[in-house]
Amino acid sequence: MQRILGRKPETREHGIRVDYLGPRGSFTEEAALLCFPRRRSEFYDKTTIRDVFQTVNDWDDFGVVPIENSIEGPVNQTLDLLWQYNLNIVGEAELAINHSLLAKPGTRMTRIRRVYSHPNALGQCSIFLRTNLPDAAHQEVESTSRAALLASKRPGTAAIAGQQAARVYGLIVLARRIQDHRNNYTRFIVISRKEPSKSGPAKTSLVFVTKHRPGALWRALEPFARERINLTKIESRPVKSRPWEYSFYVDFEGHIRDQVPSRALKLLLQRTTFLKILGSYPRWRPART
Amino acid sequence: MQRILGRKPETREHGIRVDYLGPRGSFTEEAALLCFPRRRSEFYDKTTIRDVFQTVNDWDDFGVVPIENSIEGPVNQTLDLLWQYNLNIVGEAELAINHSLLAKPGTRMTRIRRVYSHPNALGQCSIFLRTNLPDAAHQEVESTSRAALLASKRPGTAAIAGQQAARVYGLIVLARRIQDHRNNYTRFIVISRKEPSKSGPAKTSLVFVTKHRPGALWRALEPFARERINLTKIESRPVKSRPWEYSFYVDFEGHIRDQVPSRALKLLLQRTTFLKILGSYPRWRPART
Repeated sequence: MQRILGRKPETREHGIRVDYLGPRGSFTEEAALLCFPRRRSEFYDKTTIRDVFQTVNDWDDFGVVPIENSIEGPVNQTLDLLWQYNLNIVGEAELAINHSLLAKPGTRMTRIRRVYSHPNALGQCSIFLRTNLPDAAHQEVESTSRAALLASKRPGTAAIAGQQAARVYGLIVLARRIQDHRNNYTRFIVISRKEPSKSGPAKTSLVFVTKHRPGALWRALEPFARERINLTKIESRPVKSRPWEYSFYVDFEGHIRDQVPSRALKLLLQRTTFLKILGSYPRWRPART
Repeated sequence: MQRILGRKPETREHGIRVDYLGPRGSFTEEAALLCFPRRRSEFYDKTTIRDVFQTVNDWDDFGVVPIENSIEGPVNQTLDLLWQYNLNIVGEAELAINHSLLAKPGTRMTRIRRVYSHPNALGQCSIFLRTNLPDAAHQEVESTSRAALLASKRPGTAAIAGQQAARVYGLIVLARRIQDHRNNYTRFIVISRKEPSKSGPAKTSLVFVTKHRPGALWRALEPFARERINLTKIESRPVKSRPWEYSFYVDFEGHIRDQVPSRALKLLLQRTTFLKILGSYPRWRPART
């Protein structure tokens, strides 16, 4: 994303406006901070994924929302909103979801009576909790950021959340990387009304619907197989107006303006009843692992 | 399912033991009552989908859980548990999800100050609520059954839930079919340790993992396309131990012991790194629509 921004500097007085799925301290805020230069950007937390789409649609420059987690799977709402809104995916970011045990400064682990977090996070840290805090009550709340907020107000409690939440709510880290699985990553996308200019290794996202008959999906995938294009993802979502019919969200390596993918897309267009390009954008390359 | 049960009557003193995702009054209870004869069955509500799997694994005869909704998409937890447990899908049922406005007997619509329901149900009835109850507060609770329970205790409130919840909690129906979309269906599966005997038009569910290389999914789908087998569903789920690799859940029309599907499966086996048959079972044919 820094590539994209560096290329066409915005000249607004107050810098680039970036909306992200909040609340403050969320993993999506962490992703937004990875994608955009702090000094030239203004960050706005939004309550829902839909709010991010709507604000970017109406006014702001960019939005950052989660699209997929390596354990929980896709964020269906993001897929459905990509279908509904005419926005482009202009970038992606991948974040290791490392959960920490956070509490008010001065709290000792032995004094914790209650642990707040999102149900997924409590579930993902079950071994740590069983081993280190066998007597603490678990309380589910709607987000890890909300858990951090509560822990910042109530002595004798802790939150499971990310490091960004510790910074935002002034908490200390009692334990790091406490999740059971190490392979917990979330992929985020950056959305915008504009299309990014082509640069470096690209990825393309699209969604299509096939005719409802045997072999239709296989025929739709054939152009990619024939051109040896690497599909990095395929997800199906229900077509809401027609029960038990599906749309397919596909990501592949390559740019729609490159020769090979554009040949495949020409053939795909003939084999689908609906096709929408969601965007070609720079492939995510982590700075470090 | 009645077919299956009719064929091999169980001889237990207390009839067939059926677990379903509760609480009482849930749409899954409605599905369980559609699948099993009331007089010869005992129904047990379970708190989580995992509890249903575990109890059927350890002791009970059948379990009923939701697997897919025509608007919200798949129930990911059910897909993941089918991977983890060695149980068979032995039947399916489809239910139109009709939401009703329920309240204590004697309640008038104009007196309702608060409406309880699951967030999805509140969202799915937004037009009705805006038009008919513009001043009522909406309160999200964890299930439509829980909403019905609350409405049964608190005068001046109502719940959005199914008809089964009205029966269980002694509520009256103030308005029927209040959802915005008419095409709201949920598909349920029946699970068991045993395999059902073959009878009538069948459907098969399986899950596979392919090699991580271009064209692998296309090659895996080829045997189905070549044999003109109708895939009714394909879902991808993350392989939890390997980030950004996927397993594919496929439903197709036909029985694994039929000649054509078994030929396709032989080829599929060569093109996958993992293949698990989840079951061949009688296709759902609604009695009426």
